Amino acid sequence: MLTQSLCARWQVAGPAEAGSRELTALAEAHGTPLFATRAAMLDERLAQLRAMLPAGMRVLYSVKANARPEVLARLGLLVDGFDVASSAELELARAAAAPGSVLAMTGPGKRDDDLAAALAADAVVVLESLDEGARLARAAGERRPRVLLRINPPFELAAESRMSGGPRKFGVDSEQAGAALAGIGELPLDFLGFHIYPGSNCLNAQAIANGMHATLSLAAELAAQAPAPVRVLNLGGGFGIPCLPGEASLALDRLGESLGRLASEASRRLPEATLCVELGRFLVGEAGVYLSRVVERKVSRGRVYLILDGGLNHHWQATGALEGRRHLHYPIWVVGGAGRPMESVTVCGPLCAPHDTWAEHLNLPRAEPGDLVAVFQSGAYTTAISPGDFMLRPPPAQLLV
Amino acid sequence: MLTQSLCARWQVAGPAEAGSRELTALAEAHGTPLFATRAAMLDERLAQLRAMLPAGMRVLYSVKANARPEVLARLGLLVDGFDVASSAELELARAAAAPGSVLAMTGPGKRDDDLAAALAADAVVVLESLDEGARLARAAGERRPRVLLRINPPFELAAESRMSGGPRKFGVDSEQAGAALAGIGELPLDFLGFHIYPGSNCLNAQAIANGMHATLSLAAELAAQAPAPVRVLNLGGGFGIPCLPGEASLALDRLGESLGRLASEASRRLPEATLCVELGRFLVGEAGVYLSRVVERKVSRGRVYLILDGGLNHHWQATGALEGRRHLHYPIWVVGGAGRPMESVTVCGPLCAPHDTWAEHLNLPRAEPGDLVAVFQSGAYTTAISPGDFMLRPPPAQLLV
Repeated sequence: MLTQSLCARWQVAGPAEAGSRELTALAEAHGTPLFATRAAMLDERLAQLRAMLPAGMRVLYSVKANARPEVLARLGLLVDGFDVASSAELELARAAAAPGSVLAMTGPGKRDDDLAAALAADAVVVLESLDEGARLARAAGERRPRVLLRINPPFELAAESRMSGGPRKFGVDSEQAGAALAGIGELPLDFLGFHIYPGSNCLNAQAIANGMHATLSLAAELAAQAPAPVRVLNLGGGFGIPCLPGEASLALDRLGESLGRLASEASRRLPEATLCVELGRFLVGEAGVYLSRVVERKVSRGRVYLILDGGLNHHWQATGALEGRRHLHYPIWVVGGAGRPMESVTVCGPLCAPHDTWAEHLNLPRAEPGDLVAVFQSGAYTTAISPGDFMLRPPPAQLLV
Repeated sequence: MLTQSLCARWQVAGPAEAGSRELTALAEAHGTPLFATRAAMLDERLAQLRAMLPAGMRVLYSVKANARPEVLARLGLLVDGFDVASSAELELARAAAAPGSVLAMTGPGKRDDDLAAALAADAVVVLESLDEGARLARAAGERRPRVLLRINPPFELAAESRMSGGPRKFGVDSEQAGAALAGIGELPLDFLGFHIYPGSNCLNAQAIANGMHATLSLAAELAAQAPAPVRVLNLGGGFGIPCLPGEASLALDRLGESLGRLASEASRRLPEATLCVELGRFLVGEAGVYLSRVVERKVSRGRVYLILDGGLNHHWQATGALEGRRHLHYPIWVVGGAGRPMESVTVCGPLCAPHDTWAEHLNLPRAEPGDLVAVFQSGAYTTAISPGDFMLRPPPAQLLV
């Protein structure tokens, strides 16, 4: 079902469809493997999101999901700012950001050169600890950098409302926040508010909404101990996209209603605060497709193997190797394959690693060497979290179309 | 025990030891994180191996394990050839190979440009299928490229002698080899012999020896159907190194005895064949150390976290994230830490990913920001299989010392 709907969306089921012709032309022009990100789908996704979010809620893009300059340039026109995790991400975000956009740096273990880059760019620094605040203040000299304090909440994002936040490397434990806030008040830092991120890649609107309501309550409690009024509350994100069989899209209408109530409550409890969500996968994941070509079709002991020219070196997450998901797979299709006889295949990458496998026991239209295979939902966390140097095969082309 | 013996070998337990002083100086000169590979340990490993292997058995280095030019240059003086998996690896291997060395290209899904590069370099091509042989022959023109046929054996490397070889993307099923050999005989290819690789990273000498004896028997059977006498038999490798608690080094003396018997048997059954082993991790893994620096020491809900400046972006395998190994960890030590009070810590990388964790509940000497942490057994499959672009943090320095 997911694959079918994505074939329809990308218009690639049959050979005469516009999407099939376009992707075939891209593969011929640029070689395979390649990633294509559809600009119109980025626009559409942001429009959906803006229609759902309460007025005034800001959208930050989490650059780690996809830091390609052409993608950032498009998003720069659409979002209110960028969240970065390193000085190199910051440099790319600055180049893409519209005037007046927010730049924020988040992440544990920021290096001194990261903090220096944040200062030079006048980025907001999301402090992961009071020690980090002290390092920032030392580096800041006469400047008074703007900071958020990241809180490790006593809850985490889950389909059931669990109160199970445990020890973590991220942020300051909520029960230690008072001491950290007092410490920040003594440093030459401009305290703006809180960053609380209870989890990621969730498809359950109610769970996300619950997490954000809990986040608001926690921030409102902690505000009493803060050295200044809370002017920014970053609620995190965690909006997922469906990638595996049986997964369904996030119910945006339901989430929107709940976030509307959240915004009303925030206007009472934190009247000076601008609310932000920070999204990566949700903004770019559905807009990308990975295309590779069948190099060989072989039969081994009764199983048909399609060996593609792309594998986990480009898109590890989709191979499932990361999570031991045998028999689960991203939505995969043979471009233009509708109408061909179907067969059960194992779809593999070309690497000398048994787990370089896209899918097993998957019914696909019969494919031959030269055919193009599309892996959908491939716009986020692709090359960014893949071992690109494995066997030193060529990097993929990356296109905004 | 493993960590202790490695601290002794690298001389890093106490602050005054030669290794501690050297690594501290390297970190100061080159920044952290860094990988240092000790040339003398490469030499020593090859000397051990040569002393163990029967006379005349060749040693190929599998470039995918570590393709750093400085490492290849050293190994070029020590091995009989290089096994590569792509045209880029081939180019690096050619630059490093001593005159007369063997170059061989192996791997499923070889691209046409890989085959062209192999032809240009006069490399031996290890065919993964008859179709690949036909592609190679078409590209070869007047040349008659040298080939091995890779066989998917009916057994795999395991501590108990199991006969469980199943379907695979690698090679030609042994029961289909007759047809493939006949096909090769009709192509303008110079058939040299077989490549049979039953498994990797094994610490059980008996299992490796059993696999190699089974490989020889299979090759001798298949030789009857081959278009030419078997002049090369690549026995694979699979020699492991201990990385996890409780693992012990491969018993080389025992393996050597068994391979001696194998060589005698081969001289009767395949009298024209040169035997090869193909090794990656075993040659370089123990010679490398990964050094990173503590950026922050924090306590969250009763647990101590050391946040390092290096993580799974450089050395994914050692974090255990790949295999869900909670509470197992590579050998880790605080450089010069002997004599400090010990504490139980969670050692983390700096990335915004919960699984960017080196070890949990590990007893280490108390470490403070600025201290160097060494991860041993880090010479193979490090950056080669890590997502180097994750969060665009700087790449590690890589040094041969």
